Amino acid sequence: MRAHVPGADSVGLQAADASSQPRPEGSNHEAPYQAFGCSIFPSSTAPAAALQQEDWRDTACPLLFIQLNQLLSTPAGLEWREMARWIKFEEKVEDGGERWSAPHVPALPLHSLFQLRTCLQKGTLLLDLNALSFKEIIDKALSGQPEGVELQPELRERLAALLLLQPQHQHTQSPLRLLAQLGLAPCREKAKSWAEPGAQLSETPLKEQLRNQFKKKVPLGSEAAHIAVGEVEFLEKPFAAFIRLRRAVALGSLAEVSLPSRFLFILLGPQAKVKGYREVGRAMATLLTDELFQRVARQAEHREDLIAGMEAFMDDLTVPPPGKWDPNARIPPPSCLPSLHRRTALHPPDWQSHSNGDMAGAGGDKASPGHPHAGEELERTGRLFGGLLRDIRRKAPWYSSDFSDALHPQCLSAVLYIYLATVTNAITFGGMLGDATANMQGVLESFLGTAFAGFIFCLFSGQPLTILSSTGPMLVFERLLFSFSQDHSLDYLEFRLWIGLWVAFFGMVLVATEASHLVRYFTRFTEEGFCALISLIFIYDSLKKMLSLADTFPINWQYRLDNVTSYSCVCNLSSAGHSSVGNSTPLPSALAPQQPPAAPVGLSRSQCLGRGGQLLGTSCPYVPDVTLISFLLFGGTFLSCSALKRFRSSRYFPAGVRKLVSDFAIILAILAFCAVDATLGLETPKLLVPSELKPTNPERGWIISPFGANPWWVCLVSAVPAVLVTILIFMDQQITAVILNRREYKLQKGAGFHLDLLCVSLLMVVTSATGLPWYVSATVISLAHMESLRKESATSAPGEHPEFLGIREQRLTGIAVFILTGLSVFMAPVLKHIPMPVLYGVFLHMGVAALNSIQLTDRVRLLLMPAKHQPDLAYLRHVPLRRVHLFTIIQLLCLALLWVVKSTVAAIIFPVMLLALVGIRKALERVFSLHDLSWLDSLLPETARREADGKQAGRQKEDE
Amino acid sequence: MRAHVPGADSVGLQAADASSQPRPEGSNHEAPYQAFGCSIFPSSTAPAAALQQEDWRDTACPLLFIQLNQLLSTPAGLEWREMARWIKFEEKVEDGGERWSAPHVPALPLHSLFQLRTCLQKGTLLLDLNALSFKEIIDKALSGQPEGVELQPELRERLAALLLLQPQHQHTQSPLRLLAQLGLAPCREKAKSWAEPGAQLSETPLKEQLRNQFKKKVPLGSEAAHIAVGEVEFLEKPFAAFIRLRRAVALGSLAEVSLPSRFLFILLGPQAKVKGYREVGRAMATLLTDELFQRVARQAEHREDLIAGMEAFMDDLTVPPPGKWDPNARIPPPSCLPSLHRRTALHPPDWQSHSNGDMAGAGGDKASPGHPHAGEELERTGRLFGGLLRDIRRKAPWYSSDFSDALHPQCLSAVLYIYLATVTNAITFGGMLGDATANMQGVLESFLGTAFAGFIFCLFSGQPLTILSSTGPMLVFERLLFSFSQDHSLDYLEFRLWIGLWVAFFGMVLVATEASHLVRYFTRFTEEGFCALISLIFIYDSLKKMLSLADTFPINWQYRLDNVTSYSCVCNLSSAGHSSVGNSTPLPSALAPQQPPAAPVGLSRSQCLGRGGQLLGTSCPYVPDVTLISFLLFGGTFLSCSALKRFRSSRYFPAGVRKLVSDFAIILAILAFCAVDATLGLETPKLLVPSELKPTNPERGWIISPFGANPWWVCLVSAVPAVLVTILIFMDQQITAVILNRREYKLQKGAGFHLDLLCVSLLMVVTSATGLPWYVSATVISLAHMESLRKESATSAPGEHPEFLGIREQRLTGIAVFILTGLSVFMAPVLKHIPMPVLYGVFLHMGVAALNSIQLTDRVRLLLMPAKHQPDLAYLRHVPLRRVHLFTIIQLLCLALLWVVKSTVAAIIFPVMLLALVGIRKALERVFSLHDLSWLDSLLPETARREADGKQAGRQKEDE
Repeated sequence: MRAHVPGADSVGLQAADASSQPRPEGSNHEAPYQAFGCSIFPSSTAPAAALQQEDWRDTACPLLFIQLNQLLSTPAGLEWREMARWIKFEEKVEDGGERWSAPHVPALPLHSLFQLRTCLQKGTLLLDLNALSFKEIIDKALSGQPEGVELQPELRERLAALLLLQPQHQHTQSPLRLLAQLGLAPCREKAKSWAEPGAQLSETPLKEQLRNQFKKKVPLGSEAAHIAVGEVEFLEKPFAAFIRLRRAVALGSLAEVSLPSRFLFILLGPQAKVKGYREVGRAMATLLTDELFQRVARQAEHREDLIAGMEAFMDDLTVPPPGKWDPNARIPPPSCLPSLHRRTALHPPDWQSHSNGDMAGAGGDKASPGHPHAGEELERTGRLFGGLLRDIRRKAPWYSSDFSDALHPQCLSAVLYIYLATVTNAITFGGMLGDATANMQGVLESFLGTAFAGFIFCLFSGQPLTILSSTGPMLVFERLLFSFSQDHSLDYLEFRLWIGLWVAFFGMVLVATEASHLVRYFTRFTEEGFCALISLIFIYDSLKKMLSLADTFPINWQYRLDNVTSYSCVCNLSSAGHSSVGNSTPLPSALAPQQPPAAPVGLSRSQCLGRGGQLLGTSCPYVPDVTLISFLLFGGTFLSCSALKRFRSSRYFPAGVRKLVSDFAIILAILAFCAVDATLGLETPKLLVPSELKPTNPERGWIISPFGANPWWVCLVSAVPAVLVTILIFMDQQITAVILNRREYKLQKGAGFHLDLLCVSLLMVVTSATGLPWYVSATVISLAHMESLRKESATSAPGEHPEFLGIREQRLTGIAVFILTGLSVFMAPVLKHIPMPVLYGVFLHMGVAALNSIQLTDRVRLLLMPAKHQPDLAYLRHVPLRRVHLFTIIQLLCLALLWVVKSTVAAIIFPVMLLALVGIRKALERVFSLHDLSWLDSLLPETARREADGKQAGRQKEDE
Repeated sequence: MRAHVPGADSVGLQAADASSQPRPEGSNHEAPYQAFGCSIFPSSTAPAAALQQEDWRDTACPLLFIQLNQLLSTPAGLEWREMARWIKFEEKVEDGGERWSAPHVPALPLHSLFQLRTCLQKGTLLLDLNALSFKEIIDKALSGQPEGVELQPELRERLAALLLLQPQHQHTQSPLRLLAQLGLAPCREKAKSWAEPGAQLSETPLKEQLRNQFKKKVPLGSEAAHIAVGEVEFLEKPFAAFIRLRRAVALGSLAEVSLPSRFLFILLGPQAKVKGYREVGRAMATLLTDELFQRVARQAEHREDLIAGMEAFMDDLTVPPPGKWDPNARIPPPSCLPSLHRRTALHPPDWQSHSNGDMAGAGGDKASPGHPHAGEELERTGRLFGGLLRDIRRKAPWYSSDFSDALHPQCLSAVLYIYLATVTNAITFGGMLGDATANMQGVLESFLGTAFAGFIFCLFSGQPLTILSSTGPMLVFERLLFSFSQDHSLDYLEFRLWIGLWVAFFGMVLVATEASHLVRYFTRFTEEGFCALISLIFIYDSLKKMLSLADTFPINWQYRLDNVTSYSCVCNLSSAGHSSVGNSTPLPSALAPQQPPAAPVGLSRSQCLGRGGQLLGTSCPYVPDVTLISFLLFGGTFLSCSALKRFRSSRYFPAGVRKLVSDFAIILAILAFCAVDATLGLETPKLLVPSELKPTNPERGWIISPFGANPWWVCLVSAVPAVLVTILIFMDQQITAVILNRREYKLQKGAGFHLDLLCVSLLMVVTSATGLPWYVSATVISLAHMESLRKESATSAPGEHPEFLGIREQRLTGIAVFILTGLSVFMAPVLKHIPMPVLYGVFLHMGVAALNSIQLTDRVRLLLMPAKHQPDLAYLRHVPLRRVHLFTIIQLLCLALLWVVKSTVAAIIFPVMLLALVGIRKALERVFSLHDLSWLDSLLPETARREADGKQAGRQKEDE
């Protein structure tokens, strides 16, 4: 009873033996793979035809569009109706009709495959049929039956008439038309029966075919395959035919979209379970979507070739057990398909396949062993400046495309986003530098320096996606240098000029000696420690800035509504006579605070202070509402940035809209909250850019003279601090460069480590001589820059996931950002409407996004998860959990150490600490076994990969 | 090459023919299903043995724990090592070792199944072996080889020695021990090799077995199955044995946990691809996890039975195509397994299976056609009070369990949550009622009424999970009634008393005539319209209340820091002489506002107003910071409620912690934000409950006299408004009851529509006579109550999803809530620390949660999604999209209409509108075809289900 297979019996064919049964010897099996033009295995014994296309992996067969029509009996008679279609995945017409299902992986009953094999074994097979119309094909197919099972002429005619009926297609409607239909009365029968029941197939494409929205999804040059199944009561035994046309022929209105047809499969049989036939048809379609079988089908010369191709397909089958898995639950298309390479290497090494599989599971696994920086860029040439010359030679051919590639609206969004981030950064660092150096370098210097250095760097550097900025460690150094100069009565700017010159010199030496190849020793450990540190600083700073607002605009937490009469603030001019302007200590007044001596005239706060008055009263130190509204703006901006960024992967609205919103997420969030702020009208702190072009400190000029103020030996002594700065710049610059040039970003134009370092060194000379801040690559902003320039494939086949194609590598966005930064001095009237809390919210978002992009964060999360709930990450399959945890904890400890060093006076040894990170990593390598670490840390992926490739190759040979 | 199957050849067995090949006739196939004790198909022709257990579906076989040991060659010699285990899903020891993978659906290469079948066909088979130790089993198995393939005695001994080696188990460690291990030096080799290499199998369970944490996952009464595979170089051909023990025997330290063993499968063979053997072992294990095959295996009497069982398993296989699906991507266990019933009915009707499949895909689909209210409760008896008697008879047996079932910590959380919601609701409605009726019913009346009515209802009602409350429509009615009384000089309370008495009378009539059976005509359409309306009112009210805070505590948006000196507020007593206390119009003072006449003494605002003074000045009308901090608290509470609720499904922390946090989410959020508020110390509006027990309006007493104030005919005229109130109460009460008694909540104790209505009617008498507000069931709070009492199964087998078991149906939480509400009058000192914005945040959360729980919301979302991105919902597979949209839009229009009616003066006809909803739904039924609607709207699920059952039954018969 259970063994009764409805399809098999009713089709009248007996499902045949499984693929692993003893088969005819040798050649018969090898044939389908080696005898064809694009043979499955590159083999030296392949016949001449195979030589035309050397490596079959690179030769793409045209895409197949497959349509399944089923014969249904309607009140109006028999009619063909489209039931499903395939390009890569299956789309089914839902039972309710009028709707395509979402694309899904077609799951087949195992039986239908056996039945299909029987059909192919016993049915009609016409390979390379020459025919120009569907009628001709049908006639030849019906007369081409194998011996002994020929159809009677009368039956043949009836079948031909049946097959030539016009099929009813399920059209993909544009949303607009769908809306229009909504307006129609629901009781009216659907107006899609454009073909009269019983109409003959049209020779020319119908209007509806041409109008079909689905056509957009089918790439040019595609071909069609038709599958027709159904039950016919006048047949006594089933009729099956597989037809390949020699030349793809347009068959009029047969398919939903008008494409030249290549394959046809027809299965008609006596009344039985309809589902059986349909499942066989689905099996045929699924086989044809399989790239390997399609190659076989395209080049098969005999029936055996087809059968062998099908058995190869069945050899690859992996089955989930029926009771543990619902076959009706449609499997969504995986985001990452198993590669053909792997399938041809019958049993791929376990780990390699896993890392792929995880991609689907864990949404882009960052652990797939790939060395973060390309190899060639960092090879030593052994010649002076050899690396630099290579960098220039590598980048020069791309130079013109660095401008032409920028012509995309996405770049506009990137420019606005990064511009605002850069300006905010310039103001923040400018302000802090001004504090640290008594305005020897102030906000204006910061602006000019950023604009100039960034512009030059983007124009000439090796990796123009990098954004230059002042960085935290540099700020610490400047502060120490300034106080040292003050303590020893040295001229700060002159001292700094000499340090800068020495740094530039050391930098040149590093470039000349190709020191950048040491970057090879930077691993994920170092990289992530640094990146996490910088991201945390971003987050910490944005929160600190927000909290400092509470100091600038203090809230009167003790405010009581009932005491409203006691709050006031009055200008006291009477004491102005005997207290200086700077004296801001409150008067030891014997008067009750709620009753201050009233000033006779209504002076404003600034007028009062300007006239040397003092503000007296309980409400003077407080500013109502501003701090809280700032927090609301800050939180709102952060949340909207994150939400809008995530909008890309939501289900709502068409993909185009979502992409646009996601690309412009930051700008939209900023604009929205600027609008909110402007509407409310509170006096929130705004972005204020300097609008006059003169040094912030009037004591200094624009050019620093190298001699004069300091003793002569200072020039030489400066070399000592310069060593520290050089280490700092080298580490800071190169780690960022390594992060930006990670393999996962799929950069095409190559890196330029030496060239970048040269640019930074030369800029040191200029910025030192003009007394502007020093600049190196800023990790977080550069990452944000890259992220805002992601390219993704427009999906074609339904169900295919968009693929990350790389980054829009060009120089124009960077250049535009820095030109805008320079021009900001003139844009002050516009920029002053942007509230600072909004920008801090953006900073917080940038920090969080950068922190989320590193594996360390994933591993920290693992610490909090019970083992059974952990995601199925590649490294967790291969590294014992406690090693992963230990590695994470050591990284966290290093991070904590770096944080402490950075925040205390020991900050001067920070650059040395960065070097120490590399050392710690090396020590860990000893402690852990190398195999484990290569999963967590990408130090030796080349080795690991080579090993794996070796294994695979060996196995392949064994199989041959 | 491709066709070369590594496993098959190396095992030396030829994979045999597929299951659908011609088989020996009849009886041979039927045997395994019908000849056994728990036969697969309940069949009248089953032999006597089958009669012992009438319906096999109800007889559960003991759970099987299956362990796969593989023979590995280590430096210390051969050793058995545990590689995988199964209860329902597979857990694999990861390649890196020392770690179990997450449970997943075991995907098998199709080959391994064929190889396994060959093993079963040709290998040793010992069914019902009598043995007491592993040694005995091994001896019998080795000597029990089929003829012609007997092993040489020497080989036999070596094999026995090999099999008797102690296997190395992969123990599940407690998190604590894992942490302890972290402290160990990572270079130390893992300390788990507790068994000496080469040690013999122990006869008694080892210490490690007893300590194994995994034991908790294996239910009592489980049995073990062992699978041992490996390659042995001294074997020339493979040795396969499948052994079933007559009685389950404890086999010492063979398995990871000490369980009595039932099955053994041994597959040893000459050197070959190890993977081949392991895959066959995995196939065996997977077969044994299959419930149907396990039954067969437990009762098979011949080799053919086993083979037939296996072929039945293979008949059910559904295969995803290899190129479209990564076989190494582990399939997570589905949240809902296909039921055995469906698998036995070979091809289930499509739609039924879909609705199950979607559960997994769309995360709990609400569309599975299930009538929302049970049938039996609403059947007409045709006798007076017949329904009521039935209700009492149905509920009485549960009465004691209604108290004992409440003994669970979850109930504590529910009480606190619902108590706070009820108190807030009482205050809100009390305040609004007070406004509407000049304090004839105020906050205190609202408290007392809520406490009394709720308590009585929970004690006696049919559905004690219902929470009574004043509702919006009732408030509107009271407002109209009060103004009508004022306009016509009637005594409001007396008039109201008569209306109440009439309503109670009509209610009794409705109970007597079993009018509640009309509830059958309420469908999803009505229900969702009503539920959405109430949820929207919740959301709208909480937002409106928050915005009204900005009126109570106005912000001075024009505040400028520079003008701080001009802001002040001074008490002006001088005008007190000639202006009355109530006169609050500002003085038309000629003085400049920033220079008001100073009052000589520092009077506070209340003192000043108390003495008849006036507040003059620019800062008087404003309150700084309070509004904004309120918004921060409001947003924070709402977001934390939602986040903490969602924490249950996060990956972090053990399930117990997550459940606790999720259960107490609302309380935690309230406590957290009360703490924040208390820390900040601003004067936010707090929850203030009355603390004195006297009527709010001193003009009224506690008992309303029925005669005296109004003309005699008012008693009769009151019947007219009473009709409206009756409709309102009936609709309001019954729709809520229908929603609460939805089948998806799996309530066990039945509903009590008639009893509930009786309670509400009788309460009307009491509340009218004492002048308290009227109460009906409150949809949103009742839903929150139910949600907070969800029971879920503690998962047992790894990978199984927790199952929703039902609601903790009891009376105690409700009773406790209302006792606490009554006592709140004495808890004022504690409650006054809770800020109102926090409670409004909770309200918003409740509204949003209720709105999210209805299908209408899903369908509104569909309106915004392009068809291809829509989730795979059951109704979308069966109803054309534009009908779904049309249905949604009509529902939205009705909702909008209801909203308009409720918000305008037409509110009086609101109850009639609710009736109209039912009419509109009926009209739609005409317009749509019934089949479509039954998917969207659960009007006719019984019919639909019966049809489906019929189909299934028919098919089953066909198959037999």
